[in-house]
Amino acid sequence: MRLPSPIEQFIAKLSELPSLGPRQATRLAFHLLRMGNISMKELGDAIHDMRTIQPCTHCFFPTQAPKSELSPHADNKDQNQKLRCHICKDPRRTPTIIMVVEKETDLISLEKSGKFNGHYFIIGEIPKTGILEEWQNLRLAHLKSLIQKELIPSAGSGHTEEIILGFNPTSVGDFSASLIARELKPFTKKISYLGRGLPTGGEIEFADDETLGSALERRS
Amino acid sequence: MRLPSPIEQFIAKLSELPSLGPRQATRLAFHLLRMGNISMKELGDAIHDMRTIQPCTHCFFPTQAPKSELSPHADNKDQNQKLRCHICKDPRRTPTIIMVVEKETDLISLEKSGKFNGHYFIIGEIPKTGILEEWQNLRLAHLKSLIQKELIPSAGSGHTEEIILGFNPTSVGDFSASLIARELKPFTKKISYLGRGLPTGGEIEFADDETLGSALERRS
Repeated sequence: MRLPSPIEQFIAKLSELPSLGPRQATRLAFHLLRMGNISMKELGDAIHDMRTIQPCTHCFFPTQAPKSELSPHADNKDQNQKLRCHICKDPRRTPTIIMVVEKETDLISLEKSGKFNGHYFIIGEIPKTGILEEWQNLRLAHLKSLIQKELIPSAGSGHTEEIILGFNPTSVGDFSASLIARELKPFTKKISYLGRGLPTGGEIEFADDETLGSALERRS
Repeated sequence: MRLPSPIEQFIAKLSELPSLGPRQATRLAFHLLRMGNISMKELGDAIHDMRTIQPCTHCFFPTQAPKSELSPHADNKDQNQKLRCHICKDPRRTPTIIMVVEKETDLISLEKSGKFNGHYFIIGEIPKTGILEEWQNLRLAHLKSLIQKELIPSAGSGHTEEIILGFNPTSVGDFSASLIARELKPFTKKISYLGRGLPTGGEIEFADDETLGSALERRS
């Protein structure tokens, strides 16, 4: 049935987002309408405001440029070279250990654990084939050049101390990790991977064979 | 961990919506950022544009006022009295049969079936107690007054021909239906309910006891 065009428009836009089908988008549209004009203005504004976010020029984590750096008189290129996220800027973190992750949300989860004090590098969501897309290879080249030019302080002579490949423990994740490891080997003293085994709090009875296999293989 | 404030703001606003937890909101935030500024502007604009939508003054279905009626010189009250949705305005529909539904999405689903040619009336989502909220009682009073004043053409002397109570086949839905039926009885010649039984295409083997009971009870 025909809906008023602003509603149709909103549903179409929202349905483009992952994990939101037209059905949920429709429900959300009517819910927003019930919440009223102020809520709609606030949500619309919140989305518009996100346009001030740019990727960190070191690790690609979304970052808000300080206002002074966003001055219209600043040279654009220079300004881009400066934009670093709060992790890359933090002098208390060890810059010679870099964890490569797929997504921003992976970074957030790892960061929440409070157990990692190095830097990150976001390579972007790995395709189902496990082979990186062209733009991801460009990011990888960017990481290599950062290490070589010692823009990420490295252990000397274009090497960093350690690169951790923090990908999902799946066959796709493993395959990409092996490709990336080969690429990055010349730029780091050590390549490592996240541990694999029984999740803490999990039960042996309900663990799948692969997990049990890894837990046995990597017993310590 | 600390996220740039426009991202935090967006996640907070989005998490207020039903069926969207902070986790999905976070994923959507980063996805939008990856989609880029144009997509964010379009989605923000789409939400802002929804503010032109007002409820139909007869059935409460969200409706876009024609631009002429939105003229700033028009008397506001008068303009509100005029705003009717495309269903309420459609002269080919039978106005003396009114289906009371909970939500806009229920109306859309029923309308898609193409089997109903009367008018609708949206009472709003029924609370888990089954007892209507105060604002829902006001809507009910509004419906009664529409019928009495014959603003919804009625069968004469403040009666309409039929009111269908189109609620979910649950105990809460049944309970509210019985309350609403009592309220509306003086204003209609007939009160009816949606049929209940086996869903078309369903299998007897997998139907639950309640459904099978209804199917037997209402066999024809």
